[in-house]
Amino acid sequence: MTTKALDTALAYHRAWTAHDFERAMTHVAEDVVCDAPAGRIEGAAAFRDFMGPFTRLVTGSTLIAAFGDDRTALLMYDTRTVPVDHAPGSECVTVHDGLITHIRIVFDRAPFDAARQAALAPGQR
Amino acid sequence: MTTKALDTALAYHRAWTAHDFERAMTHVAEDVVCDAPAGRIEGAAAFRDFMGPFTRLVTGSTLIAAFGDDRTALLMYDTRTVPVDHAPGSECVTVHDGLITHIRIVFDRAPFDAARQAALAPGQR
Repeated sequence: MTTKALDTALAYHRAWTAHDFERAMTHVAEDVVCDAPAGRIEGAAAFRDFMGPFTRLVTGSTLIAAFGDDRTALLMYDTRTVPVDHAPGSECVTVHDGLITHIRIVFDRAPFDAARQAALAPGQR
Repeated sequence: MTTKALDTALAYHRAWTAHDFERAMTHVAEDVVCDAPAGRIEGAAAFRDFMGPFTRLVTGSTLIAAFGDDRTALLMYDTRTVPVDHAPGSECVTVHDGLITHIRIVFDRAPFDAARQAALAPGQR
């Protein structure tokens, strides 16, 4: 059974995992607040700058679990990305009037940091 | 509304966040499989060695969202820990006959790695 919040969260999720980030953004409120591992991101433009580049690195994804009620949806998924083979994430999404107003993202930055370090020439590390 | 899987996941969660890890382990199957950021952990003894030390570092926690169906529960929470002030995590838990048989944990290792590095004397880094 899906709920309104879950419908919106899944529509957003399906769009970005299908590399249609602009369609994904149609489900995101202009004043969205995103709590990500590196800190808080405010507004759709800043969110686009954060999430857009990541979605372009995604080569595959699997939805592990998704639940929700009228206001909140909670998703866990796995992604394969260019720098990191196995990058699971979880999102808790708040939906208001059909748009995502808050999104809390949990994922492990450590393998991305390690891939970035490995890609640098020794003198740059 | 809680479900069987969510009841079990919440009982486990409440016990370890209340620093009663032994009570938490009564909800975990002997042959539990845990997929954590660093890789797969198999069996209750190995899981205890992984999760137990973390729970002793926790100084506070907040449940952000929790959902489930008959078999699966999905939780997101925030924790305050001794080395890292703000360490959110998410768990997808599979329950069979009232015991957790599989648990997938997503959290950000980066601030824990940074805290460990910062705690080392310069010569050990």
